[in-house]
Amino acid sequence: MLSDPAAALSVVLDKDGVLEQICGGKGYIDMSTVDPETSCKINEAITSKGGRFLEAPVSGSKQPAETGQLVILAAGDKALYEAAIPAFDILGKKSFFLGQVGNGAKMKLVVNMIMGSMMNAFSEGLTLADRSGLNPHDLLDVLDLGAIANPMFKGKGPAMLQNNYSPAFPLKHQQKDMRLALALGDENSVPMPVAAASNEAFKKARSMGLGDMDFSAVFETLKVLKHSS
Amino acid sequence: MLSDPAAALSVVLDKDGVLEQICGGKGYIDMSTVDPETSCKINEAITSKGGRFLEAPVSGSKQPAETGQLVILAAGDKALYEAAIPAFDILGKKSFFLGQVGNGAKMKLVVNMIMGSMMNAFSEGLTLADRSGLNPHDLLDVLDLGAIANPMFKGKGPAMLQNNYSPAFPLKHQQKDMRLALALGDENSVPMPVAAASNEAFKKARSMGLGDMDFSAVFETLKVLKHSS
Amino acid sequence: MLSDPAAALSVVLDKDGVLEQICGGKGYIDMSTVDPETSCKINEAITSKGGRFLEAPVSGSKQPAETGQLVILAAGDKALYEAAIPAFDILGKKSFFLGQVGNGAKMKLVVNMIMGSMMNAFSEGLTLADRSGLNPHDLLDVLDLGAIANPMFKGKGPAMLQNNYSPAFPLKHQQKDMRLALALGDENSVPMPVAAASNEAFKKARSMGLGDMDFSAVFETLKVLKHSS
Amino acid sequence: MLSDPAAALSVVLDKDGVLEQICGGKGYIDMSTVDPETSCKINEAITSKGGRFLEAPVSGSKQPAETGQLVILAAGDKALYEAAIPAFDILGKKSFFLGQVGNGAKMKLVVNMIMGSMMNAFSEGLTLADRSGLNPHDLLDVLDLGAIANPMFKGKGPAMLQNNYSPAFPLKHQQKDMRLALALGDENSVPMPVAAASNEAFKKARSMGLGDMDFSAVFETLKVLKHSS
Repeated sequence: MLSDPAAALSVVLDKDGVLEQICGGKGYIDMSTVDPETSCKINEAITSKGGRFLEAPVSGSKQPAETGQLVILAAGDKALYEAAIPAFDILGKKSFFLGQVGNGAKMKLVVNMIMGSMMNAFSEGLTLADRSGLNPHDLLDVLDLGAIANPMFKGKGPAMLQNNYSPAFPLKHQQKDMRLALALGDENSVPMPVAAASNEAFKKARSMGLGDMDFSAVFETLKVLKHSS
Repeated sequence: MLSDPAAALSVVLDKDGVLEQICGGKGYIDMSTVDPETSCKINEAITSKGGRFLEAPVSGSKQPAETGQLVILAAGDKALYEAAIPAFDILGKKSFFLGQVGNGAKMKLVVNMIMGSMMNAFSEGLTLADRSGLNPHDLLDVLDLGAIANPMFKGKGPAMLQNNYSPAFPLKHQQKDMRLALALGDENSVPMPVAAASNEAFKKARSMGLGDMDFSAVFETLKVLKHSS
Repeated sequence: MLSDPAAALSVVLDKDGVLEQICGGKGYIDMSTVDPETSCKINEAITSKGGRFLEAPVSGSKQPAETGQLVILAAGDKALYEAAIPAFDILGKKSFFLGQVGNGAKMKLVVNMIMGSMMNAFSEGLTLADRSGLNPHDLLDVLDLGAIANPMFKGKGPAMLQNNYSPAFPLKHQQKDMRLALALGDENSVPMPVAAASNEAFKKARSMGLGDMDFSAVFETLKVLKHSS
Repeated sequence: MLSDPAAALSVVLDKDGVLEQICGGKGYIDMSTVDPETSCKINEAITSKGGRFLEAPVSGSKQPAETGQLVILAAGDKALYEAAIPAFDILGKKSFFLGQVGNGAKMKLVVNMIMGSMMNAFSEGLTLADRSGLNPHDLLDVLDLGAIANPMFKGKGPAMLQNNYSPAFPLKHQQKDMRLALALGDENSVPMPVAAASNEAFKKARSMGLGDMDFSAVFETLKVLKHSS
């Protein structure tokens, strides 16, 4: 699990790297979160030498990693996936084989796109509750008992009502994932008006200097602001 | 729990109705789901005769009602609410006192607005997964293990992938609630771009003849359609 | 041309009003800008006494009125319209007969909806030009030479670039017309995602305290704002 | 005026190309419409040999070219621009010097973005008029007399009402320009909710197979469609 595409490429391609030793009968699994293009580049290098490749990014952050509760989004060589299942069963609570290389990265984009739109829907609801005379803490309690109850609303809601946006997932990264998901939709002629409106709200938040805060800071875009002119 | 505003008004105001007997020392609780205006009209009639009034619409449908798992959204006379708590504790798993008459109805609008935007986000995600080469059933499984897992995605997702929209909550009612929530935002100068985009998608679905199906049929608006000209 | 619906109704219905003298063989033309419901109410009153009625709101403000350049949007009794043409030809440069009573008001809503979305498109373009290193005055000049050149861009652009929003048409009235046009679309199952996004921008502007300025002040919603928390 | 970026690059960089002869005291003007990156690449090649470079894409299509009515959007070397003015005055009705290389391409994106949003606003208005009982031809006439009258509405409106979308500017190219303009906004943290909603409508049109028709075919996305399931 390396930090970024440059590191993932370097470990494979640089001197004394994976590529020098890889050959038929050997496999390489990269659990970093990278873009589909980087994954495909690594895949080509490995397979051109006769090796097997699997991308296996994970869903879940620090706490799930410590407790073996990650979700593993594997894609690429199916035989290698099957050989790795015993290890994946220890690292995570569940692993998926999603098909060809790049599909792990795509799955993360789709999930994060839904999450970004949900955060906007949630922010609009909290704002509307507050401004129309309801107690937004009551809204949190009512939501938590119904059909749309989810860990994100429960986890982030109370902090948002205190204007606390310490970054678990920085807003600028969430906005980047929305942009990439919209680009994936563009390639495939999929109109996504709600994701597009959400993306503009995240861009608005970036223009307000909130890019390094948690993505829940999109809530700030809905508050009453005085114009500057 | 009467069927609609007309019934709720008739039981109070018509001959042999509640109003003929209400007086100081008596209270009236209406658990129907009506608009804030109807609730306020009943409230005025009851209190003008010296009675106490509480609106107490519920969140949850048939199964929660049978098993005493409703959520009760009460508003109006606080003393009457407190006197009713023992009964509410049998009818529901949780009751809330939300302040002045009308706030119960407003809370339902806010919750349904968030739900409507989430259904659109979910539909866009399922469509993007499918059209970019992922298996949308895998998406359902991945979502159900993460931070945005919720009963609605889990309950409606599999049916949506089979184009099954038998109505639990008809789309035309969901769209009406989006419209009323947006109107509430308009009164209070709250911009809600994601709810507005979602509302237009529900209107698109209505224009396709899907108003009587479940509100999850908004999924159909994203599918590849041939134009008719 | 009376100032508002209340005045328009009063002149017809109050003591010594039009209704006391109207009868078969007489007609009444109201050139006020009122909502369709008010127009229909006046129509019913007049026609129930055997009179003819024509609504004839105008498009154009002070200067066109002074120079006889108004556009007249008439609807209701066609024979009365035809009899009035010689007068309309003096008051305005062009008159339209649009069918049944209420259609004059609807036509104004449709035109104002398009105008409101165009103002948002224009504001976004000016902002993008400025923030990506172009001179927005150059954009005004280029626009004025091309296929989308129009009097509104030419007239309002230079003032907007000086943050001058002295009200020709107040933003709160523009937003009210967007809301009514969207409601008309709702009644007729017409999805209008661009008008909906524009309406939310006008609501954002209202929340910033810009409701009494010219509707071009929606431009302010796109500027870099610091959040207040 | 070459057909695409590949041709523009080839003429400069290939064997027997411009680069072999360019030197101090000589200048090169490219009037092709290319992306800012291509323009910058050509600029670097030319200036590294001591030459001067000017990009000068034009606004306007066949008829303005034949009649010398083009608008010239020049950027790059200012002295070269000034030397070329006599030629530009014959080719076009007006030329602009927009600053550094790339600004000509950016200006075209901004103009086309505004145009795309206006086309959506216009389409929504025509649809609303038709479905709420007005004659959309009357709307065209009313629009043409007012503050938002423009050549595009006048030129394309009548054809749109006949479902005639013979391509002057193909929808897929318009959508590409919307995407690039939104990307430019993303780089500069400019939220553009109306352009984003418009872009999704163009994507919807592409998903309906309308990419090769005129961009006014986005009108079709608003019509009543039957769902296919």
